[in-house]
Amino acid sequence: MHIGVLGATGPAGSALGVRLCSLGHEVTLGSRDSARAEAVRAELIAKWPDHDLSHLRGADNAGAAAADIVVVATPWEGAAPTVKALEDSLAGKVVVCMANALTRVGREFQPLIPARGSVAADVAAAIPAARVAAAFHHVPARELGDLAGTVDCDVLVCSDDAGATQVVIDLAESIPGMRAVNAGRLTAAGPIEALTAILIGMNVRYKAHLSIRLSGLDDSGARTR
Amino acid sequence: MHIGVLGATGPAGSALGVRLCSLGHEVTLGSRDSARAEAVRAELIAKWPDHDLSHLRGADNAGAAAADIVVVATPWEGAAPTVKALEDSLAGKVVVCMANALTRVGREFQPLIPARGSVAADVAAAIPAARVAAAFHHVPARELGDLAGTVDCDVLVCSDDAGATQVVIDLAESIPGMRAVNAGRLTAAGPIEALTAILIGMNVRYKAHLSIRLSGLDDSGARTR
Repeated sequence: MHIGVLGATGPAGSALGVRLCSLGHEVTLGSRDSARAEAVRAELIAKWPDHDLSHLRGADNAGAAAADIVVVATPWEGAAPTVKALEDSLAGKVVVCMANALTRVGREFQPLIPARGSVAADVAAAIPAARVAAAFHHVPARELGDLAGTVDCDVLVCSDDAGATQVVIDLAESIPGMRAVNAGRLTAAGPIEALTAILIGMNVRYKAHLSIRLSGLDDSGARTR
Repeated sequence: MHIGVLGATGPAGSALGVRLCSLGHEVTLGSRDSARAEAVRAELIAKWPDHDLSHLRGADNAGAAAADIVVVATPWEGAAPTVKALEDSLAGKVVVCMANALTRVGREFQPLIPARGSVAADVAAAIPAARVAAAFHHVPARELGDLAGTVDCDVLVCSDDAGATQVVIDLAESIPGMRAVNAGRLTAAGPIEALTAILIGMNVRYKAHLSIRLSGLDDSGARTR
């Protein structure tokens, strides 16, 4: 499976890219500036000499959009314009939005509400022929990008396309420690994205790298509904 | 500590009331109709003969509002009008809003956004002299009200009054299994309340009683920041 990451020079995108590549996927890190993507690729390969990252590539965002599955990890303001510019490449593909819209107000982090209620909904409106899902919002980038460790986190996946949900659930559950849960239709992205600001605020307050686990869920059922 | 619950005849309010009473608190279950509160009290006492519920009372909402700490467990539309009518009683007190605004749309549950962004913000605006906090949104009522079991859940507590946050954290952590976390100022109530609709949707999909645990948080620090 070839996975492209738009905006892969940020902490979340690079962490997801290197993790997925370490698991055997072909991964193209995309950036507005392909030289920056190449630089991040080189850093990651230098950082993890004991992992096979031979299928990690750097490219511009158009190069990343040529993949089979495309992850949107740009800053939230750039998400919809970035995918819109790549609309033809993304048609028919599973596009996974992991961006969160938030701002710092004093010592608090607060969610910002994009025009359609979530970054993912704005992305879906920009590329109506793509199969948009939202996921990976609450995963701490440090743990995700630490190939020596597992990721103690449940991922809430939502989409209006049930097949896309399943593709993303399978992708997330290929990551050691991660469990993925079907959180419903794409309207769920609003509350899921908004919670990220609260988690980041608690990270600052508790000097932690918090993530979410759901209790009361039978593991065996998580992938099947 | 005397705790009053407004709207205690619903599943969440009655569960919290009976749980806190079982832990030694004096609890007054409030309802618009004191006879309904008395009936719920009698049911709870009949259900748990092995627990000391001698300090459980039923009253109208005004009776519950006379307590030291007052929990708002009414349906969300009733929360602000109910506390407004009790404004004088509630002045200076810690008032804990646990209501969630949501609706069912087809097979999905979606959050509704109250005028000020959250039920708790509407409640705070209605009773400016009270010390409003929001908490207990994600606690499954069945587990909370099952005195034979513990509650496998983290509670996110938010308030603009740091003393109120601490009072609610201490109250929540008196419940076996429950951990409470300072989630910031009352603006956090919007995302916290909204997530409840997503959890309820997942409960239906997975036939589960989901709740939230935070990973990556050192237990020893949870109460102190």
